[in-house]
Amino acid sequence: MTDVLDLAKRLMAAPSVTPATGAVFDALEAMLAPLGFAVTRFTRGEGAVGSPEAPVENLFAIRRGPEGSKHLAFAGHVDVVPPGGGWTSEAFEPEVRGELLYGRGAVDMKGAIACMVDAAAHVPADAGTISFLITGDEEGPALHGTRALIDFMREQGHQPDLCLVGEPTSVNRLGDMMKIGRRGSVNIWLEVQGTQGHVAYPHLADNPIPRLVAMLAELDALVLDEGTDWFQPSNLEVTEIDVPNDAHNVIPALAKARISIRFNDLHSGASLSEKVGAIAEKHGGSALPIISGEPFLTPPGAFSDSIAAAVKAETGVDPEPSTTGGTSDARFLRSVCPVIEFGLVNATMHKTDEAVAVEDLATLSRIYARIARDVLAG
Amino acid sequence: MTDVLDLAKRLMAAPSVTPATGAVFDALEAMLAPLGFAVTRFTRGEGAVGSPEAPVENLFAIRRGPEGSKHLAFAGHVDVVPPGGGWTSEAFEPEVRGELLYGRGAVDMKGAIACMVDAAAHVPADAGTISFLITGDEEGPALHGTRALIDFMREQGHQPDLCLVGEPTSVNRLGDMMKIGRRGSVNIWLEVQGTQGHVAYPHLADNPIPRLVAMLAELDALVLDEGTDWFQPSNLEVTEIDVPNDAHNVIPALAKARISIRFNDLHSGASLSEKVGAIAEKHGGSALPIISGEPFLTPPGAFSDSIAAAVKAETGVDPEPSTTGGTSDARFLRSVCPVIEFGLVNATMHKTDEAVAVEDLATLSRIYARIARDVLAG
Repeated sequence: MTDVLDLAKRLMAAPSVTPATGAVFDALEAMLAPLGFAVTRFTRGEGAVGSPEAPVENLFAIRRGPEGSKHLAFAGHVDVVPPGGGWTSEAFEPEVRGELLYGRGAVDMKGAIACMVDAAAHVPADAGTISFLITGDEEGPALHGTRALIDFMREQGHQPDLCLVGEPTSVNRLGDMMKIGRRGSVNIWLEVQGTQGHVAYPHLADNPIPRLVAMLAELDALVLDEGTDWFQPSNLEVTEIDVPNDAHNVIPALAKARISIRFNDLHSGASLSEKVGAIAEKHGGSALPIISGEPFLTPPGAFSDSIAAAVKAETGVDPEPSTTGGTSDARFLRSVCPVIEFGLVNATMHKTDEAVAVEDLATLSRIYARIARDVLAG
Repeated sequence: MTDVLDLAKRLMAAPSVTPATGAVFDALEAMLAPLGFAVTRFTRGEGAVGSPEAPVENLFAIRRGPEGSKHLAFAGHVDVVPPGGGWTSEAFEPEVRGELLYGRGAVDMKGAIACMVDAAAHVPADAGTISFLITGDEEGPALHGTRALIDFMREQGHQPDLCLVGEPTSVNRLGDMMKIGRRGSVNIWLEVQGTQGHVAYPHLADNPIPRLVAMLAELDALVLDEGTDWFQPSNLEVTEIDVPNDAHNVIPALAKARISIRFNDLHSGASLSEKVGAIAEKHGGSALPIISGEPFLTPPGAFSDSIAAAVKAETGVDPEPSTTGGTSDARFLRSVCPVIEFGLVNATMHKTDEAVAVEDLATLSRIYARIARDVLAG
């Protein structure tokens, strides 16, 4: 049988800062193939290393159940954020100290992928179809990651019924939170054009800053909504203002700013872009939106019940169905089938000395196996 | 005799972006010495090139009249602002095209200095004492410019009765405006400290931008005064906002801005610094003022009458006594003697293709000569 700690260590020992390729996928393939999975690996992207178009590797694996059986997809990523400095042990040399396994990717999310593999080993092949949708770029531009996997599945005629994403959704202890949705995200670049001039002759110039300031004050005062049953209120933050000017006696010609909106399903990226664009225009400016993701929601129901029951059985905890936090690849997978995220404790994700409780790996593996057995049977 | 166009070209052909040293002073000395002026050049400042303490050259020249005669000082600067791009001809290769002489410094203010030299050539040496107070740093920090010249004069026991500064004060046509005063100037650096965090978790961060925006909106809406008999209303401009942030999903920790206030004699640099400081504090920020100059006024009287008469005689125009515009070295010279500024048309100053009408050089030279003869006789 598989050993989930050993699986996690093998994945974590392969450095795989975004975009991941090569060794970490070799390790994963070597785990899945013996369990009866048909593994396909493919690379997308032909840009220069370091560019958003740089090559990304992806892995699709499937173990078919009986004709007409249900299909559960485990989704996740093997790329990790850069280790940064100050680690106690090497970031890519996983090490157990006390009750914790340390190393980059421990919770986000190679640990969870090890649990998914281990769970699959504990689900009979005839229980139903299980697939793995694993990308090498979730932390980066994500141009050629999960989207490419979805394209691949469509081309090959694979259609999961449910998708479980292994992001680290637990907050204080394993099982306390699952994500049944995520807010959408849009960044909008704002610009006000003026006319440069001398501070002493303001009537000959046109200072764009007062208009930008008035625009930002109005945007900051916006109440987008009061939240919904499942979402917190949408939130707008001004994240950058850029009116550089080394000359003390010069009125600048151009004033720029950037805002970031995290929004619930009362809005779309397009509706917010239009709203902000109208305010920008009112103040004599312009707005350029880039939508990173639309909100998604898998309303509480059979799928979340199944997850909650498995968590409760293994940990005694009732997971809170939440839609807080940043975006994840669930923003893409929502177009395929209902998707929920559930995984390890996220306290150390992206940090120095990222670590997972060894015990949590075993528990999460059992939870994933329970979920799989339950939804495949349902 | 001297040829004012040739004098202007010789000064303009010497590149002298602030702080000016060397060649441009060589050219000026070579003009003044043959006219009977005793020329002293000295350099002040020992800092690194590019720092506010960088070396600056200054020139003091004097042609003494009979014992007890009046003393008129011509004051000005030979440094210029950087040319910038897009010139039709080279910025430091003065060129006459049509009726205009093009080149950096044409009106601000090498052209006027050429007129002063030419005027001195047309005033008999026994009419009275004429001096030149010419600095290489008026456009820059001005730490070691006119202030150093004033110190030098005091040490040497020179005490002008009147000072004429050759800044380009004319607006639409030569002679339409002289400056009998200048507003004061203060720059104030504003800062709001917050706490960095992730855009998706704004409750864990403290975005300083909304407070900065509210502060700037309040400052921009301030009505400082309605103006006085001789001064226009004081004016506040936001000249820079600096909240850099390359990360789209990060709330920044620090928001900075800079304002510039040009103010009349109803205020002082200190009173305005206090007012702005209180507003900054109200919005949770701080303010650091640097006062560049206090306002000054030489009320209309014999000196302005003499200038007006000379202008009228040569151009038919009645010059408006004004206090508009930026600061000039008159803010320092006011401590020496009554000072008025009168010079060329300022429409192209600091701009690409700065240019002066060749005819204006000849006319201004005659005006300066009339003023000198009149005030030295008076």
